[in-house]
Amino acid sequence: MYELMLNLEEKAKKCLYEQIYEHMKGEIQRGNIRCGERLPSTRLLAKQLDVSRSTAQLAYEQLLSEGYIESVPCRGYFVCQMEELYHLEPEILPKAEQEVSAPADVLYDFTPNGIDLDHFPYAVWRKLSREVLQDDQKELFHLGDPRGEYALRSVICTYLHQARGVNVQPSQVIIGAGNDYLQMLLSRLLGTRRRIAMESPTYRHAYEIFRGLGHDCCTVSMDQYGMDVEALRTSGADIAYVMPSHQYPMGIVMPIKRRQELLRWAEEKEGGYIIEDDYDSEFRYIGRPIPALQGNDTHQKVIYLGTFSKSIAPAIRISYLVLPLSLMDKYEEIGKRFSCTVSRIDQRILQLFMERGYFERHLNKMRALYKSKHDVLLAEVRQMKGVRRILGDRAGVHILLQMAGERSEEELIRRAREAEVQVYPLSEYCIDDRAYEPTVILGYATLTEEEIRRAAERLASAWEM
Amino acid sequence: MYELMLNLEEKAKKCLYEQIYEHMKGEIQRGNIRCGERLPSTRLLAKQLDVSRSTAQLAYEQLLSEGYIESVPCRGYFVCQMEELYHLEPEILPKAEQEVSAPADVLYDFTPNGIDLDHFPYAVWRKLSREVLQDDQKELFHLGDPRGEYALRSVICTYLHQARGVNVQPSQVIIGAGNDYLQMLLSRLLGTRRRIAMESPTYRHAYEIFRGLGHDCCTVSMDQYGMDVEALRTSGADIAYVMPSHQYPMGIVMPIKRRQELLRWAEEKEGGYIIEDDYDSEFRYIGRPIPALQGNDTHQKVIYLGTFSKSIAPAIRISYLVLPLSLMDKYEEIGKRFSCTVSRIDQRILQLFMERGYFERHLNKMRALYKSKHDVLLAEVRQMKGVRRILGDRAGVHILLQMAGERSEEELIRRAREAEVQVYPLSEYCIDDRAYEPTVILGYATLTEEEIRRAAERLASAWEM
Repeated sequence: MYELMLNLEEKAKKCLYEQIYEHMKGEIQRGNIRCGERLPSTRLLAKQLDVSRSTAQLAYEQLLSEGYIESVPCRGYFVCQMEELYHLEPEILPKAEQEVSAPADVLYDFTPNGIDLDHFPYAVWRKLSREVLQDDQKELFHLGDPRGEYALRSVICTYLHQARGVNVQPSQVIIGAGNDYLQMLLSRLLGTRRRIAMESPTYRHAYEIFRGLGHDCCTVSMDQYGMDVEALRTSGADIAYVMPSHQYPMGIVMPIKRRQELLRWAEEKEGGYIIEDDYDSEFRYIGRPIPALQGNDTHQKVIYLGTFSKSIAPAIRISYLVLPLSLMDKYEEIGKRFSCTVSRIDQRILQLFMERGYFERHLNKMRALYKSKHDVLLAEVRQMKGVRRILGDRAGVHILLQMAGERSEEELIRRAREAEVQVYPLSEYCIDDRAYEPTVILGYATLTEEEIRRAAERLASAWEM
Repeated sequence: MYELMLNLEEKAKKCLYEQIYEHMKGEIQRGNIRCGERLPSTRLLAKQLDVSRSTAQLAYEQLLSEGYIESVPCRGYFVCQMEELYHLEPEILPKAEQEVSAPADVLYDFTPNGIDLDHFPYAVWRKLSREVLQDDQKELFHLGDPRGEYALRSVICTYLHQARGVNVQPSQVIIGAGNDYLQMLLSRLLGTRRRIAMESPTYRHAYEIFRGLGHDCCTVSMDQYGMDVEALRTSGADIAYVMPSHQYPMGIVMPIKRRQELLRWAEEKEGGYIIEDDYDSEFRYIGRPIPALQGNDTHQKVIYLGTFSKSIAPAIRISYLVLPLSLMDKYEEIGKRFSCTVSRIDQRILQLFMERGYFERHLNKMRALYKSKHDVLLAEVRQMKGVRRILGDRAGVHILLQMAGERSEEELIRRAREAEVQVYPLSEYCIDDRAYEPTVILGYATLTEEEIRRAAERLASAWEM
């Protein structure tokens, strides 16, 4: 019988039974106690180690639970027959790591993906979050409706109706943690291997996600009015992914005629759908916001995708999907299984933020702010030598520049980078290999007006040479 | 030329140009202004309506943007040629709806999915969230690392090492909004149409999600030690989904020998993986927590799935995936495209909750609380007449009951329901059609001790008759 050699530490952090358990487990793992070997009874073990019998019992219980030893009635405890002696092989331990931070050789970054967070109403957000957490509201910590909170969906409907001309009921709204997730969910509702038509250039991320989910994504040519519906018809696609209010990155607004043609296509196409990505319809500098395509959809063919990433902040991670009635059965069947991915606390904060008018005020403030940055950048760019065309300057938070001369995007970007200014290539958004004019993208949301001026000066001299 | 008949309201909420725009848009939509018709110049329109010329200009700009009219140089403004007259068809308007609430004819609900939220440290959570939002921390509202915040991943690693014997680096941890989402993400990393072996009964939701994602899910028989590895070998599966520390719903703890066999299988199987769902390893009433299988994995074959849904609250929507090093390249290639689905504010709150020891204290408190509820229920059930077997009573927050006699699950549940007590059928968790003994599930997390006593009394008499 095996006799335990163990110095117990009375004052150790680990209690006595744990010390015994760990010692014996180690001995078994190292092969020092052989399989099949009989172990002392709990009474004997207690005596050997000078501990109470219940301590010995606890140690054995744990070894029993994990399957290292077994208890044979009337005979005692034995080390289990393992498949083989259990030698831990040297582990491929991942290297210890540290957080990596971004390189800092860019002074002015015209990223088209950022937003201005200097003017976020932190105090309001804090106040609302305090209020939401105030009353120990238990139910907020229980799992909620898979579609998201009714109250939030309801206030989103009101907003969509007023601001976007979208007519829906709360049951059609699905809250989700960002567009990526909602695209995954939508993909489940649409079924496998759909043929999805996209413009090029487009929001490349959506393209990659749909393709990654096994869909067949094709590109359809685009003219000054947006996706070419004739080309769409011959593409064999049954789903069209468009951004009619403000195409990204080209900034094209789809006129009513093209919208009608597109809707007609979807009506005629068996199983046809239009995915309307209405990602930044809020920021328009001339006139009112362009209404959503969804508002003209009389045949339940438009799937509307909205987000608060641009209008509030990307990190709050709240987007929503508005399903046409024709997809509601599919949602009930499949989609409801997926729990809502946004915390109920965050949903409640956003609900109050919208209900109490903070959202509208914030949008108005940001619209004025972005307009003023927009005007500064436009004024600078218009003075710049060699600018051939400015595109997409009526809405959104970026513009596109085409320069005179033969310079490639790479060269324009390289020269800008040498002046510590980062601008972005249009080619990043192109998902086909059609030839197009070298174009750079300048996002101005994250820069201050003064920074925009200084950066534009640097660009002017970098591109002049 | 069309002449506008319109009464402008000076004091209306909508400004003048919007009134003009909306009126003209309506007239075009209703066919009252025909396609191709010439519109008055802005000067003439301004005169007709007695508004400034810039107001008229703004109205036209908006109609131009949306494509209702076009401007022909030197000739003026014309209504666009549409494909056809744009008549809005009667809309299939969704019925106005109201929030639905759950039926209230159940007095005591032994749901196995709930948690006790009477003892959640609301004040701490509130304090931490206030602290996180305190300093207008801009960067928290920008998009973060797709894997989640480094600091949170780091503190999760420490916790996993100490509490679960899991050895990983922060880069292997992917934070996500709930297991459903992480399963979707994982599915993308594993590739399409994998054959996934599951036990039966099991966590049905996981089964349905994997199947819905196009994987081929098969069941593998289970004995008292968990998944049968011989059966797994012949099943043709290359992925095994298991819950070794506490199988749901059966409560089986997989002993070390079976774990070794399972790991051996994964090592030998080309592309083989084990998904370890460690959903509620925290609540164990006899001895220490059972270590995770991941800790024994020397060949980077275990994908570990953890969640705070049981240990904190389901509605905070934070789970995490620990990827083996063998899947890191796939993650870099595919997974990184998906933005993290948890807000950075929530991540920071959880990080502080863990770092400052609140999590550990909360777990200890809940363990004691659940243990005490567990003991009350066990005492009641042991007195109950006709109970043949109690299963899964060493851990977790539910037990399983098998009754003597010939009663089906449906009948047991119907009788309980007549006494206003809700218990749950094991059959809900079965994904194959093997015969098994009628078994009901009693979750006790959401009930108080007094409620458990009263509910158990009702059950005793409901089942006695």
